[in-house]
Amino acid sequence: PNDTIEYENYFSRTLLDRRSDKRTDSKWLNTKQNHPATVYILFSNLNPLVTLGGGKDGSQQPEVRLCRLCHKDVKEYMSQTEKVTLIFLGVELQLTTLNGGILKEDEEDGLVAWFALSIDATFAEQFKQRHEDCYFLHPPMPALLQLPEKEAGVVAQARSVLAWHNRYQFCPTCGSATKIEEGGYKTTCLKEDCPSLQGVHNTSYPRVDPVVIMQVLHPDGNQCLLGRQKRFPPGMFTCLAGFVEPGETIEDAVRREVEEESGVKIGHVQYVSCQPWPMPSSLMIGCLAVAVSTEIRVDKNEIEDARWFTREQVVDVLIKGNQRSFFVPPNRAIAHQLIKHWIGMNANL
Amino acid sequence: PNDTIEYENYFSRTLLDRRSDKRTDSKWLNTKQNHPATVYILFSNLNPLVTLGGGKDGSQQPEVRLCRLCHKDVKEYMSQTEKVTLIFLGVELQLTTLNGGILKEDEEDGLVAWFALSIDATFAEQFKQRHEDCYFLHPPMPALLQLPEKEAGVVAQARSVLAWHNRYQFCPTCGSATKIEEGGYKTTCLKEDCPSLQGVHNTSYPRVDPVVIMQVLHPDGNQCLLGRQKRFPPGMFTCLAGFVEPGETIEDAVRREVEEESGVKIGHVQYVSCQPWPMPSSLMIGCLAVAVSTEIRVDKNEIEDARWFTREQVVDVLIKGNQRSFFVPPNRAIAHQLIKHWIGMNANL
Ligand SMILES: Nc1ncnc2c1ncn2[C@@H]1O[C@H](COP(=O)(O)O)[C@@H](O)[C@H]1O
Ligand SMILES: Nc1ncnc2c1ncn2[C@@H]1O[C@H](COP(=O)(O)O)[C@@H](O)[C@H]1O
Repeated sequence: PNDTIEYENYFSRTLLDRRSDKRTDSKWLNTKQNHPATVYILFSNLNPLVTLGGGKDGSQQPEVRLCRLCHKDVKEYMSQTEKVTLIFLGVELQLTTLNGGILKEDEEDGLVAWFALSIDATFAEQFKQRHEDCYFLHPPMPALLQLPEKEAGVVAQARSVLAWHNRYQFCPTCGSATKIEEGGYKTTCLKEDCPSLQGVHNTSYPRVDPVVIMQVLHPDGNQCLLGRQKRFPPGMFTCLAGFVEPGETIEDAVRREVEEESGVKIGHVQYVSCQPWPMPSSLMIGCLAVAVSTEIRVDKNEIEDARWFTREQVVDVLIKGNQRSFFVPPNRAIAHQLIKHWIGMNANL
Repeated sequence: PNDTIEYENYFSRTLLDRRSDKRTDSKWLNTKQNHPATVYILFSNLNPLVTLGGGKDGSQQPEVRLCRLCHKDVKEYMSQTEKVTLIFLGVELQLTTLNGGILKEDEEDGLVAWFALSIDATFAEQFKQRHEDCYFLHPPMPALLQLPEKEAGVVAQARSVLAWHNRYQFCPTCGSATKIEEGGYKTTCLKEDCPSLQGVHNTSYPRVDPVVIMQVLHPDGNQCLLGRQKRFPPGMFTCLAGFVEPGETIEDAVRREVEEESGVKIGHVQYVSCQPWPMPSSLMIGCLAVAVSTEIRVDKNEIEDARWFTREQVVDVLIKGNQRSFFVPPNRAIAHQLIKHWIGMNANL
């Protein structure tokens, strides 16, 4: 039967197919862990191990890239299970997989598996001394945005799951210790009669925190509202944002957050695009929001400042690169994309 | 100064303004808890207390409505803090609030506060015996869908936060006990040197689990893909759905889930609308997804069946009410709305 799987990369912006079906296949996972083609990416304190690659032509800036290690590079750490955490990330997308990815005895399925391995500080020190061209990317933001887009996706996945293990080592229902299962995507309480063992509960699964981030348009259509927090670098302004609350729609969260932070009331809200943000595990949901009032009353507990910027001011910063008066987050941040999307929507640049 | 706030209900689909700024104002919360105008809604085992109201004209079916209690109805339970949980839900939306909602000594701000109070089984039994016209809505689904839309929103908020307290009573970082703060929206670890007390962590805040739910269109535009799980009532088919994973976009989650469950590959994905789903705390993100392949291979671990349905078949069920061959979830479920949206998109009904 023709059960080969063809992946069309065109439709996939990710580097890996997560193959969640393999998470419960411990035999397969074991085989892949020891396989020479398997790729390991290393983390210490939630920071990924990277290296500098040369630009494509010699003139370009060196590029930050993930270090892709193999089993022999990490073997010595893998046995120390109390000091490391291992996450199965998926398999490389490929045009054809043999046998639809079913591994038979003594037979190869041809899938290249990826794992994230988190090691403790002592191991990290050891490793760096032996591999001088590698370093752990720190601080994570905005450094993570230097990674090529597809690698950033893999790091977002790995970092979110590792951050979850870092903070969720005990059962929140009864306080007992837990064990890690399913390739790193599940934790199970070790106390026999814990209520979390009856039925399916989110306590066992990693968190994803939805956040709304919005480009707010002035009713006149020619200005947008940007704000800044105290901890931002001086001069940086960006879209307002905030966590979606329980029982709230995306659209209501946009209206609530804008009004809370700036006093501006919002009418129509439109989804644009989203971006995972592994700090530690957010999903940034990007929207356009049309204001129905214009007076700004900044809530100083939440933000430091918020202002209307004209289209000309934003074009000056974003297109002409004139950052004397203010600047916005870099290209790869969703805020940048939302602001750019708004400029692009205007016909006469 | 003119600091009266005017709420335009037109832009708000919620019954309450959450007023998160009041969550840290314990004096205000205390005053409101004892205020005769304050509304309490009661929960037992995560089920809300409801009553049957008559239809608007005598002929209609009786309507399920939340019981809106006042302080004197619940006073005796409120002091038993180990047996009850209290959540501040917000204040009723109103056209004008006096003094912008700032409560002065011996002065009223005119805001009508709402609280959710969860009581234990013994108290619930007592309460029901005294109020025979009231009952706790059970099982929650699909019964919750009988509530008027705005009340459903309030219940979604309350139920999600209560479910979180139910399952997250211990600090997941160190296993110690926690205390509830900020009107019910924060838990803080009681162990002095717990790492969760340094910085801001999601361990302290309620979960919202983003779920994608998608109306999958056949490449010919005239069929859609609906599936069913084993636990569904016989004959019911609905949109495919699944949890967004860490490091994943909404669009990638749609593609992954559809392919995992049905083998169908997806190209373009478009956000339509969303709905909170308090089972226990999901945010259903509704999308249209255009298939680029048509062969169905059902993953029996995830669903029981998936089929292409023609537009005529769906119109028959949804518009003409002919449910002999299959049926879909009720009107107020987002799946129903997505399916309807697709039918509406077709010009020639
Ligand atoms: N946050 C979560 N809460 C519950 N189940 C989850 C979560 N994340 C992933 N899952 C998985 O999703 C399955 C339930 O999906 P469903 O049948 O759609 O409710 C569970 O068996 C888990 O394997
Ligand atoms: N899941 C969450 N994780 C972290 N902070 C949260 C969460 N939910 C609500 N918050 C609140 O959001 C604030 C941080 O927001 P931000 O400055 O946008 O990162 C915190 O001080 C909390 O009050």
